Amino acid sequence: MATAHRIAVLSGDGIGPEIVAQAVKVLQALRGQGFDFELREAPVGAGAYLLTGTPLPQSTVEMALASDAVLFGAVGDPRFDHLDASLRPERAILGLRRALGLFADLKQVSVPAELAELSPLRAERVAGVDVLVVRELNGDVYTGQPRGMRVAPDGPFAGEREGFDTMRYAEGEVRRIAHVAFKAARRRSAKLCNVDKANVLATSRVWREVVIDVARDYPDVELTHLYADSAAMQLISHPARFDVILAGNLFGDILSDAASVLTGSIGLPASALLGDAQRGMYEAGHGTALDITERDIANPLACIRAAALMLRHSLGRDDLAQRIEAAVTAVLRQGLRTADLAGGSRVVGTTAMGDAVVAALR
Amino acid sequence: MATAHRIAVLSGDGIGPEIVAQAVKVLQALRGQGFDFELREAPVGAGAYLLTGTPLPQSTVEMALASDAVLFGAVGDPRFDHLDASLRPERAILGLRRALGLFADLKQVSVPAELAELSPLRAERVAGVDVLVVRELNGDVYTGQPRGMRVAPDGPFAGEREGFDTMRYAEGEVRRIAHVAFKAARRRSAKLCNVDKANVLATSRVWREVVIDVARDYPDVELTHLYADSAAMQLISHPARFDVILAGNLFGDILSDAASVLTGSIGLPASALLGDAQRGMYEAGHGTALDITERDIANPLACIRAAALMLRHSLGRDDLAQRIEAAVTAVLRQGLRTADLAGGSRVVGTTAMGDAVVAALR
Ligand SMILES: CC(C)[C@H](C(=O)O)[C@@H](O)C(=O)O
Ligand SMILES: CC(C)[C@H](C(=O)O)[C@@H](O)C(=O)O
Repeated sequence: MATAHRIAVLSGDGIGPEIVAQAVKVLQALRGQGFDFELREAPVGAGAYLLTGTPLPQSTVEMALASDAVLFGAVGDPRFDHLDASLRPERAILGLRRALGLFADLKQVSVPAELAELSPLRAERVAGVDVLVVRELNGDVYTGQPRGMRVAPDGPFAGEREGFDTMRYAEGEVRRIAHVAFKAARRRSAKLCNVDKANVLATSRVWREVVIDVARDYPDVELTHLYADSAAMQLISHPARFDVILAGNLFGDILSDAASVLTGSIGLPASALLGDAQRGMYEAGHGTALDITERDIANPLACIRAAALMLRHSLGRDDLAQRIEAAVTAVLRQGLRTADLAGGSRVVGTTAMGDAVVAALR
Repeated sequence: MATAHRIAVLSGDGIGPEIVAQAVKVLQALRGQGFDFELREAPVGAGAYLLTGTPLPQSTVEMALASDAVLFGAVGDPRFDHLDASLRPERAILGLRRALGLFADLKQVSVPAELAELSPLRAERVAGVDVLVVRELNGDVYTGQPRGMRVAPDGPFAGEREGFDTMRYAEGEVRRIAHVAFKAARRRSAKLCNVDKANVLATSRVWREVVIDVARDYPDVELTHLYADSAAMQLISHPARFDVILAGNLFGDILSDAASVLTGSIGLPASALLGDAQRGMYEAGHGTALDITERDIANPLACIRAAALMLRHSLGRDDLAQRIEAAVTAVLRQGLRTADLAGGSRVVGTTAMGDAVVAALR
C-alpha cells in the first residue's frame, strides 16, 4: 500500500458540500490498487465566517499547506454582501490562491459531438471544441498596489472621490505562466493564442513581449495574438479555432468563464489551480447556487472532474484521472443528465449522478 | 431649405472608404425635404500617417470639432504595428474620443427573429434579442495615470522590469455615464444591468456605489448587477435577459464586442459615440478587413446604420433615422446578404447592398 495522500477538503457553502461529497465517493471507489488517501475537512467561506468570524481561518490555510492537494467546493452567499470586502466569503478564494502560491488556473472546456446539443451555440459551431484556458492567477489588477479610494489628484474630476487600482505584470511573472501555457500546448495541438490588450495597456505590452520571448523555447508551438475584445468574439463565433488560450488574471477570468458556458452548463468543466509546488487546488469553478442547495439536484460532474485533475497534477495518478474522465463521459453518453443540462433523456439527482460515475468506473 | 449640416467624413483605412461611400449614398438619397448636408473629408489612420506622419493630424481634429457630426469608417493596418504606439493607426481612435470629449459608446445589438439564423447561437436563444451596451469611453485603465514601464518596486518580482497602468473612476465620471444608461433604459424596456468587478476592484466599488445612487432618480428602471465574468456568460447563454448593459471602458470594450457577434456578423451593429455636446461620432465599430479591401464585398449595413444614429443623435432627425433603419431591415427581409452573412439567399456586393437600401428608402 502506498502512503496515503493527504487531501484537504474545503467544501464551502451552498451546493459545495453536495458536489464534493460525490467527488469524494468517486475517489473512494478507487481506493486500493496502490491508491489511498486521507481526507481532512476544513471550513471556508460563509460557513467559516459564521463559525470563526473570518471566511478563511488560519487553521484552514495551515491544513491546506500541510496537504498534498486541496479539493475545493464553492463559496459565496449574497446575505454577506453587506460585510466589509475583507470578510465576504469570496475573499477566501483570493486568500487561498495567495497562501498556496497558485499562479496558474487551467480550465479545460471540451464539447464532444454527442453533447453539442447542450450548448447555447449551434451544434456545428461547437461540436469537437476542446479549449484549455490558462489564466494567470496571482498578479494583474487583482493584487497590484496601490489601490483603494482617494481624492482624484488631476484631470477633469480632480478633487472628487475616486476608486483606483494598479494593473501590473513583471517580466518574471509573465514568464512563468507563459511556460505553463506553452508546455500545455505542446501536450495538445501545439497552438497557443495569447490574449491581451497591447494596443492600449502598458501592462499588456510587457506581457506580449515576454510571451514572444518565451516562444523561442517552443518553436514547435504556433503562437498567435488577439486583443481581449476580439478573443471574446472569436470564442463565441468560432470556438473551434482555439487550442490553448493564455491570458492575464482579469481577461482570463472573463474568458475562462465565457469558454465554460460553451459546454451548455457551468456544471461540466473543472479547473486545476497550480503553483510551483506539486500541491494544487482543484475546483468546479462554479458558484454556490443557493437556490438549489440541499435539493440533491446540483450537477456533481465538474467537481468529480476536478478530482480527476487532482489525481493527474498533484497525486501523480494520471491513470486514475483518465478512468474518472472516461466514466464521466460514459454516463453522459448513457444520456444521464442533471437538471442544469437541458434536453437530457434521463434526468437524475446529484447522488444518482455520482453513483452512476462510480458504476461506470468499474 | 434648412441650413446644411456639416458632416466630417473620416473614412480611414481598408474597407473604411467603401462602407462610408454607401452610407453617404444613403444620406444623399434623403437630401431635400428640409434635409441638407455638406460633407468634409479628412484623413485618419494609416492613410493619414503616410500623408502627414501622424495617424491623427491636428487639421482632422479641427475639422471634426467644427462639424455637427463625425461619420467614421475604420482604421488599422498591421503593417504599421512596428511603429511606436503613439504613431499606430488605432491611436487615432483614442485621440478622437479624447479630442471630441466622447464619453459614451452606445452599441445597439438586435436580432430580429428572421435573422436569428445568422447567429452563432441557436435561433431559440437569440431570436428577439435587443441589447443596448452603454460603455464608458473616456476613463478607466484606458487613460489613468501613471502608466508605462518601470522597475517593480516591491513584491516577489521586485527589481524586474514591469508594465503598469492605473485603473480609476471618479464619482462624477460614473455619474454622467450612469445617467446616459438610465435614460436609455427608460426609452426601452426599463431594465438596466450594471457590470463591474466590485468583488475584486476598488474602482468597481466606487462605480457600483454611484450607479446605485443615480438609480434613485430612476425608480421606474429596474437595476441589477453582474460581475464581468458572469455577464459574459449570461450574454452567451441567455442574451434575451438583457435590455441595457452599463459597463466601464474595459469591460464595455469586451462586452460590446461579444454582444455584437450575437447578430452573426460584426457587419451589422453600429455605435453612437457621444459626449456633452450635440456632436457625436458614428461608426460601424468593426475593423479595416484589409483582406477584402477594394473587392466590393464588405458589408456596408453597419456603417449605414451608423449614419442613421447620426441623424437621430446629432442632427435631430429621428424621422430620417427611422426611415434608414426600416430600409435596412427591409433589404435583409428581402434576403439580400453580403458575403459575411452566412446562409443568405441572395449574396450581393457592397455597392449593390447600398443601392438596395436606397431603393428601400423610397
Ligand atoms: C470570486 C472572484 C474573486 C473570482 C475571480 O474573479 O477570480 C471568481 O470569479 C473566479 O474566477 O474564481
Ligand atoms: C482600437 C482600440 C483602442 C479600441 C478600444 O479598445 O477601445 C477598439 O477595440 C474599440 O472598441 O473601438
